[in-house]
Amino acid sequence: MNDESDHPRQPGRRQFLTTAALAAAATAVGSAPGAQAAKAPGDKTGHAAAAAGGDAEPFWGTHQGGIATRQQGHVYFASFDVVAENRDQVIALLRAWTDAAARLAQGQTAAALTEDPAGEPLDSGEALGLPPRRLTLTFGFGPGLFIKDNVDRYGLAQHRPEALIDLPRFNGDQLVAERTGGDLCVQACADDPQVAFHAVRQLARLAYPAAKMRWAQTGFLAGFGNKETPRNLMGFKDGTMNVAVDDPAALEQFVWVGEEGGWMKHGSYMVARPIRIALEHWDRMKLAFQEQVVGRHKLSGAPLGGQHEKDDLNLDANDADGNPLIPENAHARLGAPASNDGAQILRRGYSYDNGLSFVAERWPPWRQGMEFDAGLMFFCYQRDPRTGFVKVFDKMSKFDMMNQFVTHIGGGLFACPAGAAEGGYIGQALFESA
Amino acid sequence: MNDESDHPRQPGRRQFLTTAALAAAATAVGSAPGAQAAKAPGDKTGHAAAAAGGDAEPFWGTHQGGIATRQQGHVYFASFDVVAENRDQVIALLRAWTDAAARLAQGQTAAALTEDPAGEPLDSGEALGLPPRRLTLTFGFGPGLFIKDNVDRYGLAQHRPEALIDLPRFNGDQLVAERTGGDLCVQACADDPQVAFHAVRQLARLAYPAAKMRWAQTGFLAGFGNKETPRNLMGFKDGTMNVAVDDPAALEQFVWVGEEGGWMKHGSYMVARPIRIALEHWDRMKLAFQEQVVGRHKLSGAPLGGQHEKDDLNLDANDADGNPLIPENAHARLGAPASNDGAQILRRGYSYDNGLSFVAERWPPWRQGMEFDAGLMFFCYQRDPRTGFVKVFDKMSKFDMMNQFVTHIGGGLFACPAGAAEGGYIGQALFESA
Repeated sequence: MNDESDHPRQPGRRQFLTTAALAAAATAVGSAPGAQAAKAPGDKTGHAAAAAGGDAEPFWGTHQGGIATRQQGHVYFASFDVVAENRDQVIALLRAWTDAAARLAQGQTAAALTEDPAGEPLDSGEALGLPPRRLTLTFGFGPGLFIKDNVDRYGLAQHRPEALIDLPRFNGDQLVAERTGGDLCVQACADDPQVAFHAVRQLARLAYPAAKMRWAQTGFLAGFGNKETPRNLMGFKDGTMNVAVDDPAALEQFVWVGEEGGWMKHGSYMVARPIRIALEHWDRMKLAFQEQVVGRHKLSGAPLGGQHEKDDLNLDANDADGNPLIPENAHARLGAPASNDGAQILRRGYSYDNGLSFVAERWPPWRQGMEFDAGLMFFCYQRDPRTGFVKVFDKMSKFDMMNQFVTHIGGGLFACPAGAAEGGYIGQALFESA
Repeated sequence: MNDESDHPRQPGRRQFLTTAALAAAATAVGSAPGAQAAKAPGDKTGHAAAAAGGDAEPFWGTHQGGIATRQQGHVYFASFDVVAENRDQVIALLRAWTDAAARLAQGQTAAALTEDPAGEPLDSGEALGLPPRRLTLTFGFGPGLFIKDNVDRYGLAQHRPEALIDLPRFNGDQLVAERTGGDLCVQACADDPQVAFHAVRQLARLAYPAAKMRWAQTGFLAGFGNKETPRNLMGFKDGTMNVAVDDPAALEQFVWVGEEGGWMKHGSYMVARPIRIALEHWDRMKLAFQEQVVGRHKLSGAPLGGQHEKDDLNLDANDADGNPLIPENAHARLGAPASNDGAQILRRGYSYDNGLSFVAERWPPWRQGMEFDAGLMFFCYQRDPRTGFVKVFDKMSKFDMMNQFVTHIGGGLFACPAGAAEGGYIGQALFESA
């Protein structure tokens, strides 16, 4: 986690500012949102980010970044309500976001800075001097972009994908409006939290007045440079059986939308859900019970009955009393492909921690007080949520022993379209659909 | 920011768990809070942390860590109300915290883990496998530990330092109770947010039932491995004129309490203040105005009228109209030692970001909506707050142009005692005062 050793002299925002940015400032300053920003330097492959050095992730490409990208250390997720007056404003917003995102992914400012003292800075500046830190920006479209209160605001209702369902109410859901829904979303991931925050801040500003922020949640991933599976706040390794992002066949099968998707081809569906964990409650459970809940050993991550983390789940093994070694309502069993007709999703969750919140209702007076407002900011990506998250989570929501400790408090489903080719914009195929 | 490159084979929690921890488990499991935990391996210098590898900060020593320690990337600050029934319970809590802190700083679990399935895990486990990540834990005592509602609960009132004042109400303060005060505090800093969170979580658990959490705030430092001065969320370099942590003479003069402090000798006073920044408002200000507010250039960090970040503030220079180049109410002028009879404080702030919050009251309906709940989690350390923070901030609170954009919404003053010698506990000198 040391910039000096990792990136001794990386060309980043600083170099850009002292050369290209300032030279370009005269033309770019004052350009309206929606206008093309000054073109970022790029090579012929359409992967301009390569020019920004070793810790930049490509922005332009077949797929959006932040999905099959090796998971970064931090996320800033933001959901927006679109209030644009017409379709052209929505397109202008997506163009402005795309242009800014391509620059930000290279470690540049969202727009060229001004040195004109009377100019309004078009970038807030807190990422100046920082390298790209593998920033990815993943954009998604909520159902409300297509139709809202039965109104087809932007002529998109006919193009709403069948897969972009209204998520059903799951057993135990306690979704609060101020953490739920949104017509657009941005998942900003980076290895520096300030880089992720900076990016969303610039996008939120570019959105004005066509869209405004609705809710946001940050998250972090422990020891994200390690090869080992990271642990969640329950103390267990999380992601052992995840779809591998370096397995193109699995990605094609489970994550990327295929020909069936029309304009969503090469895209993916994101489910985002803040899941609060009652950490104080969990911490008082005995080790054996925690392991029964998860279906795995805490220290090694091995499935119950196994020795090593990567051992197969043996869902048929019984103990001496004839009970399943991995309980029928254990989290790992309920989530396993074998329990869900082979369904798999690409999980990309982050721990979150919003400090403390006051908890009164459910406790007697002597227990009332402050609790951690913390848990898992769950993200998953899939080719179709009906055969992905909904398939896997429906049973979990009813039977998972873990439900004693976790509460889904918000979230949404978003259609994340394909990546953009240089000069294009995210969502172009939707707006150009016949 | 890559654990692999920085710490290829660092002995961390994992090694400990597979060797020492499990061997020690039999004796340590079930030990009551307050009992001495199994001794951590250490050398003869009293700096046991050295044994844990290159990214461990020493815990035992003359001074507490987290003050003159090179600033880490993340903070988790937690404040506690003490509800212990008697003095012995307070001492037992401080012993338990000290023992756990010494272990955690080495990348160990707070207490040895159990492999007994019927045992309750004495550590929640989410930092297993992670190296120490330079974790420091800095403990402080608020006024309420000494006297609360005029009651001398623990026989400490006579030892309350004169310097541990009740902070005055400053112009513009909008402190809310749920982010203010506390009888004890812990500042956990580390280069991995999960390591910092994990540490506070264990300490909060050990505190039960003698103390309970009152408020908490996380924070992050951009590009913390860089040599360059980090930028705050206003986009300006922050800390250019700070006390240098590698200047022992400056630390002795401005930070560490001397003989005058009695039991507080070698300690320091911490002011903690969450300061919300109206980022959307700030972002709409012209560059020149932003620079007038700060008194420095945004890109270079140089003082107005200067060329380089480290140039001296020239507080006497005037422009052609005879006005000061650095305005009389600029932040940098008001904070400069020359404006405060030479007063200096060691700032150790972190940017914070709590997602969004709804802002309605102060705007017309068309502007109502969600704003960033973000800003600066300000920390400073000083030998005496009366000649430190209070001296510097009193004038700022009245005249600083920056007050248009920032609001102090909480905080506290805490007496952070000296470090502990191995086998002792934090605050021992206070409790053993005649």
